[in-house]
Amino acid sequence: MAVDPISPPQSRPEAEALDGADPLKDKRAAFDLPPGLLYFAGNSLGPPPSSATRALERAAEAWRARLVGGWNDENWIDLARETGARIAPLIGVEKDDVIVADSVSVNLFKLAGALIAERPGAVAIERGEFPTDGYIAEGLAMISDAPYLIVEPEDRPESLRVLIKSAVNYATAEIADIAAEEARAASAGYAVIWDLSHAAGVVALDLSQEGARYAVGCGYKYLNGGPGAPSYLYVARDAAARLVSPLPGWMGHAAPFDFDARYAPAPGAERFACGTPPILSLAAFSGALDVFDGVAPAALERKARALSDLFLARAAALGFEVACPVIGARRGGHVSLSRANGYEIIRALIEDRVIGDFRPPDRLRFGCSPLPLRFVDVWDACDRLADIIENERWRDPRYAVRRNVT
Amino acid sequence: MAVDPISPPQSRPEAEALDGADPLKDKRAAFDLPPGLLYFAGNSLGPPPSSATRALERAAEAWRARLVGGWNDENWIDLARETGARIAPLIGVEKDDVIVADSVSVNLFKLAGALIAERPGAVAIERGEFPTDGYIAEGLAMISDAPYLIVEPEDRPESLRVLIKSAVNYATAEIADIAAEEARAASAGYAVIWDLSHAAGVVALDLSQEGARYAVGCGYKYLNGGPGAPSYLYVARDAAARLVSPLPGWMGHAAPFDFDARYAPAPGAERFACGTPPILSLAAFSGALDVFDGVAPAALERKARALSDLFLARAAALGFEVACPVIGARRGGHVSLSRANGYEIIRALIEDRVIGDFRPPDRLRFGCSPLPLRFVDVWDACDRLADIIENERWRDPRYAVRRNVT
Repeated sequence: MAVDPISPPQSRPEAEALDGADPLKDKRAAFDLPPGLLYFAGNSLGPPPSSATRALERAAEAWRARLVGGWNDENWIDLARETGARIAPLIGVEKDDVIVADSVSVNLFKLAGALIAERPGAVAIERGEFPTDGYIAEGLAMISDAPYLIVEPEDRPESLRVLIKSAVNYATAEIADIAAEEARAASAGYAVIWDLSHAAGVVALDLSQEGARYAVGCGYKYLNGGPGAPSYLYVARDAAARLVSPLPGWMGHAAPFDFDARYAPAPGAERFACGTPPILSLAAFSGALDVFDGVAPAALERKARALSDLFLARAAALGFEVACPVIGARRGGHVSLSRANGYEIIRALIEDRVIGDFRPPDRLRFGCSPLPLRFVDVWDACDRLADIIENERWRDPRYAVRRNVT
Repeated sequence: MAVDPISPPQSRPEAEALDGADPLKDKRAAFDLPPGLLYFAGNSLGPPPSSATRALERAAEAWRARLVGGWNDENWIDLARETGARIAPLIGVEKDDVIVADSVSVNLFKLAGALIAERPGAVAIERGEFPTDGYIAEGLAMISDAPYLIVEPEDRPESLRVLIKSAVNYATAEIADIAAEEARAASAGYAVIWDLSHAAGVVALDLSQEGARYAVGCGYKYLNGGPGAPSYLYVARDAAARLVSPLPGWMGHAAPFDFDARYAPAPGAERFACGTPPILSLAAFSGALDVFDGVAPAALERKARALSDLFLARAAALGFEVACPVIGARRGGHVSLSRANGYEIIRALIEDRVIGDFRPPDRLRFGCSPLPLRFVDVWDACDRLADIIENERWRDPRYAVRRNVT
């Protein structure tokens, strides 16, 4: 989806002016951010909207006061479907076609398994794809006849039945051309399951328009759903009517409370629900989505791109190698940089209250989450980065000690 | 495991005396119970221990204050394994052999899938088993060569590779003879996956001693982990070293933060972890387990049995048909009754602030959770039940309107 670009500011006052004119500026107040922290890890774990905390407190109180009655009185029983319906406009699909359930890995397995059960063939990821997505295809191969392949982007073997592909690559931030891949898939006869984890909430996804029929995504990154928030799954209406999940749990049954001995799938995407959802985590996720009320995906992409354009321009001037597309229209919500001693640099930045993350072997990533972040935040973060580089403060020996910086 | 029985009280003062002598009596204060409510649905959703609420608040605050740093600073990264280690003594296994992850359905699929990948064969449940467990076997059959069978208790076909069986039946409350089934399995060459959902926290499970090698269970029933709390999975050490999960997510990888393209399973039960766990729900579950500190499984079973003996004795006097074993040693933590107009009776009881549940076609179930419940609670609940029956108060037409009473 084409968005109208914003030119990067050339000074802090220009950044302040952009913040003043930002149509999304009021959304920042909806987040509960630690004072003074410059948080660029929203691509890893989004910060808590106050509405998420309130929804969580309400669910905890309902557990106390309503106990098992919460399933009816608080409508927990419909919460997975209702949360899916709130995600739908952010990815450009109808609200009944999304269900929240399980993790991204489990949801990938369900869709890939359902597709190979319908028509056998290989399940593939491209080289450089998020590794876990490949593990899941490998696990499926272990118990089925579906071979697992790692393919090159130009390679679509004849045996291919399912391709799992990220809409935005976790490492390079490159945006996939969804419509082009779908056209290729339609002519070659394979299905694409889109992993939207690094795309939803920051890229103007329009899956229906682009012809996408299957997708999964993560709740805890740009959707700010909380640590380990449940995942969501999208399936096009006509496919949902035909496919059966290989993980047919009771919450995906047409009549869960009848306790039928035989499985009868619910209509639509809901048949891809499985066991009882983790209500406390799900309630927080659902509440978190309040911040997207009235926000068009194109507005999210437009601001995120402008933030990351600014970040890239300043980082390039500091001698970082840009490990993501320079052209904004091809780049998702995070910038990816590389440089010798990247690990030590990230550690020094964290010490300076600028949170980014590090992925081996040498990638620094900075998520430019468009609702909680301002242009001045990017400006100030790059000032601190400049200070660390120019004064070689990353050489402090304590930064060399390895620990996970998720 | 044999427990020393307690004779049911014959009057309310006798019930009070039993409460006064109860070695578990101090545990009730660890729960946050609504005043005046007599809650017998702990077999469906356990009430919140105050420690669960505190742990949840702490996790929510860490999300706010530590953001992505919570994975290290709050050790979220180890929370699934640590929670598993706290469950282990309640089921009689070593602490490293249990991992918390996903739902019961997904965990059943992982174990059954791993077992049939190792050696092909059929996956079966017994007739009358919890339906979802069968749905999962059916789902596995859809994508693998493993036929799905529903067998009679006396029937163990030659093709059988995996039997999924409840340690306590959800409807009848009948306790399975784990050691006997394992002996049969060892000689016939099949594996048993025990579903502990209705057993853990209320029956003196001793899986290692009884020869059980595979089990899954639910966090939100007698373990009081919160609505939709994640599930746990046990696998014997030698089997864990050999089996590979068909849902090999990154949290089950030997080195998740290396982002290797190839899957390398973690040692032990942890390889059966999959995606990122829902930390808010998991934190509540972990906190909830505080109430079991210092409590032997045999003490739980002893009190639960005495509570349910009392419930059954009084209900039988009111003309209910007993739909669970009368002999305490064969009965799990809930009593199961049937009677015409059972649905209306449950509705009337709920109106009287006694919470039980109803399962079609005619079962009333009352969970006798041993830590939050007292003997006087059973006594008083049965007084109200008697009043509803003797005065036919269940005939009130509003109780005939069907809605889910989970």
